[in-house]
Amino acid sequence: MVGNNLKPQAKTIEFWFDFGSNYSYLTTMRIEQAASSLGVTVLWRPFLLGPIFKTFGWETSPFVLQKAKGEYVWKDMARECQKYGLAWKQPTNFPRASVLPLRVALSGADESWVAEFCRQVMTTNFVDDQDVDSTDVIRSILDRMGLPSEQILAAALSDKNKLALRHQTEAAQAKGIFGAPTFFVGYEMYWGNDRLDDALQYASSNNG
Amino acid sequence: MVGNNLKPQAKTIEFWFDFGSNYSYLTTMRIEQAASSLGVTVLWRPFLLGPIFKTFGWETSPFVLQKAKGEYVWKDMARECQKYGLAWKQPTNFPRASVLPLRVALSGADESWVAEFCRQVMTTNFVDDQDVDSTDVIRSILDRMGLPSEQILAAALSDKNKLALRHQTEAAQAKGIFGAPTFFVGYEMYWGNDRLDDALQYASSNNG
Repeated sequence: MVGNNLKPQAKTIEFWFDFGSNYSYLTTMRIEQAASSLGVTVLWRPFLLGPIFKTFGWETSPFVLQKAKGEYVWKDMARECQKYGLAWKQPTNFPRASVLPLRVALSGADESWVAEFCRQVMTTNFVDDQDVDSTDVIRSILDRMGLPSEQILAAALSDKNKLALRHQTEAAQAKGIFGAPTFFVGYEMYWGNDRLDDALQYASSNNG
Repeated sequence: MVGNNLKPQAKTIEFWFDFGSNYSYLTTMRIEQAASSLGVTVLWRPFLLGPIFKTFGWETSPFVLQKAKGEYVWKDMARECQKYGLAWKQPTNFPRASVLPLRVALSGADESWVAEFCRQVMTTNFVDDQDVDSTDVIRSILDRMGLPSEQILAAALSDKNKLALRHQTEAAQAKGIFGAPTFFVGYEMYWGNDRLDDALQYASSNNG
């Protein structure tokens, strides 16, 4: 029978992220492999963190607003990248605007290329130290991946998809998201790359 | 020869904490055992987090000021305590004032009883859900531990020790501390219970 109660549910984890977020970089680079090894599927949930920060009265990242925390974060990032074996260069522009790549990632969230696209964008920001909210940069990433860049950009820039990113960001706020990365496994929320393994363990054990 | 350059330096970690800090609770309960298993000695560094928050323009904990983050933190604490096998009750009063137990912990920071005293105070706050900034409560903890409570309280409440806690808090700020728990291994700073194991590994490898 199809659709009966005994049908196993897929083990999934929602990964809410913004390309401007440095801790989302750590997760983006490692989540697919970590999830796959536990039989968990990643649901990519790009959203805009800036409007959520604005609801707290913040015009930019707390890592910019709080000087001591900001200075610490760059040391922490260097150590974390070393721990995970990831390349790292502190961005000269932080937090970088990311609305265009977020629109592309949202438009392609269910496509097979989304994970690699996200890794490429993150690497462009946090390793190559290049701005990512640029049509040329994003087209170049899509081209390198052998994808139909003009078609993907047109879909990303459609009114429907622009509205979808606004709705995604409102959904993030409604879910209680206050930073990135954030994970959901069912109704359980986990904040921060430091909680990825706990969230994956829960997703893996939560086998429907 | 005593004091020559070949004398091995002790492997140490500085543990900066406030009894009102819930993530400091997690660390307080597990640091001594974790450090000891790696041959690392804990240097207890009680300080007042409130005056540091005030320098950011915050009148209380960010877990109170940011509603979404606050709601998340209590779920995270319940999961973290389960992970570490620690008892937990969400405090009905948060963040609790803690100046008296901090004065006692600072006055006794080099005494053999400091670790157990700190665990008792944290348990009183985060398991028994009792206020800890009370002479009766602190005296009772010291008495239960078989310590000369009146003598310890008198030392804690001396002008010299009160001033020492103010200086300790200023030192925390000068070191760039912006939250608790924070660890120092030499000049390397680590923030958060999530970084305790990394800090201990570094302390352990840093064998002078």
